[in-house]
Amino acid sequence: MDNRIRNKGLAGKVCSAEEAANLIKDGMTVGTSGFTPSGYPKAVPLALADRVNRGEKVQITLLTGASVGDELDGALAKAGVIKKRLPYQTEKHIRDCINRGECQYIDMHLSHTPQYVRYGFLGKIDYAIVEAVAITEDGHIIPSTSVGNSPVFVEMAERVIVEINTSQPLDLEGIHDIYTPKNPPNREPIPISRPDDRIGTPYIPCGPEKIAAIVITDIRDNVRPLGPIDDVSRKISGHLIAFFEDEVKVGRLPRNLLPLQSGVGSVANAVLGGLVESRFENLYCYTEVIQDSMFDLIDAGKVLMASSTSITPSEEGLVRLYDNIEHYRKKIILRPQEISNNPEVARRLGVISMNTAMEVDIYGNVNSTHVMGTRMMNGIGGSGDFTRNALLSVFTTASTAKGGDISCIVPMVSHHDHTEHDVMVVVTEQGLADLRGASPVERARKIIQNCAHPQYRDMLTDYLERALHAQGKHTPHILNEALSWHQRFIETGTMKIK
Amino acid sequence: MDNRIRNKGLAGKVCSAEEAANLIKDGMTVGTSGFTPSGYPKAVPLALADRVNRGEKVQITLLTGASVGDELDGALAKAGVIKKRLPYQTEKHIRDCINRGECQYIDMHLSHTPQYVRYGFLGKIDYAIVEAVAITEDGHIIPSTSVGNSPVFVEMAERVIVEINTSQPLDLEGIHDIYTPKNPPNREPIPISRPDDRIGTPYIPCGPEKIAAIVITDIRDNVRPLGPIDDVSRKISGHLIAFFEDEVKVGRLPRNLLPLQSGVGSVANAVLGGLVESRFENLYCYTEVIQDSMFDLIDAGKVLMASSTSITPSEEGLVRLYDNIEHYRKKIILRPQEISNNPEVARRLGVISMNTAMEVDIYGNVNSTHVMGTRMMNGIGGSGDFTRNALLSVFTTASTAKGGDISCIVPMVSHHDHTEHDVMVVVTEQGLADLRGASPVERARKIIQNCAHPQYRDMLTDYLERALHAQGKHTPHILNEALSWHQRFIETGTMKIK
Repeated sequence: MDNRIRNKGLAGKVCSAEEAANLIKDGMTVGTSGFTPSGYPKAVPLALADRVNRGEKVQITLLTGASVGDELDGALAKAGVIKKRLPYQTEKHIRDCINRGECQYIDMHLSHTPQYVRYGFLGKIDYAIVEAVAITEDGHIIPSTSVGNSPVFVEMAERVIVEINTSQPLDLEGIHDIYTPKNPPNREPIPISRPDDRIGTPYIPCGPEKIAAIVITDIRDNVRPLGPIDDVSRKISGHLIAFFEDEVKVGRLPRNLLPLQSGVGSVANAVLGGLVESRFENLYCYTEVIQDSMFDLIDAGKVLMASSTSITPSEEGLVRLYDNIEHYRKKIILRPQEISNNPEVARRLGVISMNTAMEVDIYGNVNSTHVMGTRMMNGIGGSGDFTRNALLSVFTTASTAKGGDISCIVPMVSHHDHTEHDVMVVVTEQGLADLRGASPVERARKIIQNCAHPQYRDMLTDYLERALHAQGKHTPHILNEALSWHQRFIETGTMKIK
Repeated sequence: MDNRIRNKGLAGKVCSAEEAANLIKDGMTVGTSGFTPSGYPKAVPLALADRVNRGEKVQITLLTGASVGDELDGALAKAGVIKKRLPYQTEKHIRDCINRGECQYIDMHLSHTPQYVRYGFLGKIDYAIVEAVAITEDGHIIPSTSVGNSPVFVEMAERVIVEINTSQPLDLEGIHDIYTPKNPPNREPIPISRPDDRIGTPYIPCGPEKIAAIVITDIRDNVRPLGPIDDVSRKISGHLIAFFEDEVKVGRLPRNLLPLQSGVGSVANAVLGGLVESRFENLYCYTEVIQDSMFDLIDAGKVLMASSTSITPSEEGLVRLYDNIEHYRKKIILRPQEISNNPEVARRLGVISMNTAMEVDIYGNVNSTHVMGTRMMNGIGGSGDFTRNALLSVFTTASTAKGGDISCIVPMVSHHDHTEHDVMVVVTEQGLADLRGASPVERARKIIQNCAHPQYRDMLTDYLERALHAQGKHTPHILNEALSWHQRFIETGTMKIK
């Protein structure tokens, strides 16, 4: 344990998870580490849930980096501890609480959260709970498989609880690059000009006096399995790579492309995975998560450096990471999400953003978050941070869902997360629509023709043509029909007209 | 004229507007100077319209900085010359063409256009037509009352036509600061850390060989009158200034605030004007347009420096500018819109953005562009560039329009330009809703209570309460009713239920 807690004075702070959890009182605001089910605290939240399940009333506002594992969101949601939650989640129980109206959820751009905290927009942070692989001699914190918002939570919280997780290898030390921008009006340019620039410290500045408790645990990251690469993902990846090849051919992209950002999940993993077999090489990634396909790209020598705020592989991917940590540490930089998702850096680097849509409308607006306009699925995450500032912004989706009963191309999306102004390319397994320089009606024709499923193509064209004779012809809509496809699905279980 | 055309070799390029206009051929893409009715070319477009009105067929794609005056958008639209138009307009005839479907209009973030041009997303630019006060000895161009996209058009166009406008005083020389970022992957940080940093040249780099023709003209900027400061604007301004005072009191804003960005138009002018009477001083502005109230703020010693891409005063304001140009030149910097509207700089400086909404919904989504969801009014302009990256993003609107028949607070906006994720504060004459850290339902209650007109408050509450029992409770909506207020207005001329 000497290697894990290097500051001798901190030995007395080691305590049980129960003792640490007792520090959390009703009404507090707690900020934790964790971005995707990776690097989040586990023992203390489980102990807190336990306390509440035994009868005590504790409700908190919970801030994280992004989604976290079941030991945090799941256990606390089941116990009814989470009164308010931000900025992102993917866990079943917390999602159900949100959609029942029992938990107030703020679905935020992930680059906004650290600013909101630092500017005091969310009030005082009582405790930061941060998973670490070690604490340095000076009492600074070496994070584990994610950085997320830990630096800002540690900076702004009254006190800090550290979970030393011995399942996380000490060899992760050196992979992190922690940089904290000053607040306006004293902020200077973030000095990143290339994805592989290191600009900070390998630890989160903290100091021993701020640490209230240290808990030792060995609970592993509760990572999620990645779906197999299916035919739809493979086709989407194929369309996208062909498009990149064309862009290189006409001179609009360099031969090694530009730094790639790819969203989370099986389709995103497959899209990036498609590059392994492509002719592209000497790639860089400037993204927020590293999934299994990134290891494939690194091992194939295709990716020179991947900058991110989290490593969130499958169970097998986690073993692969741990077994080859010295290798991957040279090819991966983990940054605070304030930097990984920073609009300034994304625009400077000319990122190619690739994110998953839940539905897209004929004019190119994207819904990333809401099922049928009202139920939260996960959240916008970092997709907006990258999309708005990308050199090339791409959204991918299967053309249909629920066995064909949902068309993912609709007349009007039921919730707007990314507007027509920000979406350059839409890809489904049917094909790709390049929307750059196209007016709304031109976009509609491309999206219907190239991306919609043939089953829904005529219905969409019919809507467009009738809308062209309804009101204004700039963005033609029939207002009392625009959301009728969703209403039909709610009422009949299908968007098809029976 | 020696002072206006300082490169001796260029004397032979001087020609009539008709001769210059003859260079523009059918099918060309033309990029012009101009941002608001300020600094746009006038003589050549009028001559081009004339040529077409005499029977010749010419249709072009017209790119500008933003809106321009009647001599460009109006004359060419009336003559049917504009086939495609971007990124912004405010002129009656071009707007009518757009809404009749005769002109394809791409409504873009104003910081996106220069990138689209430079990255080749819009194809070749055949001609740049740029208004100037002078051409330097080296053949570089000194712009007039706006910079807009002129630098990138001059850089990327095959040839350049310069309109020397003798109504624009030579004393404008030195007010401009022209900086051009490199393309990714070679882009470096934009070295602006304060609104008053000058980082470029006082001219647009061009060179004599690229100049195809020079036209001398004295047609003045066709500026628009500003509406009088009415009671609604005064109340909005009052709510906002009280809010700023509170933010300073609790330590979330410095005493001299942070750099202010303010949209275009009478309400925006009034909001900024309210600061003249306030206790705030030593202010900076980092914005895209300078209207009359900025002169008041400068004269009152309240604003130390205003950075912008355009000066667009009223007729009286223009006289005031010309009469005191030496004075204002020390307090104003005109930058390319790629810099004035740059997300990197906006986020670094911590801009306070204040833009005008057409309508806002109960969840904080904003429609800036479309009348009843289908008809284009003007465009998104720079509002998105600033809103998304502001430290504090504000939208203002009157609570009603059309004598009360339109509620500007609706269940769901009929077009989404700024999503719930980006809007922090909404202000109407009724009051102010601070949406920071509020979930959708919390936002709805604040907006209805604080911002909606009393006439519509009960109807909105009724919608919200019924929606809470419809589907998901995260963002409650009744899909077949969400846009019914707009439909009712179309059918009955009022959103009220008769």
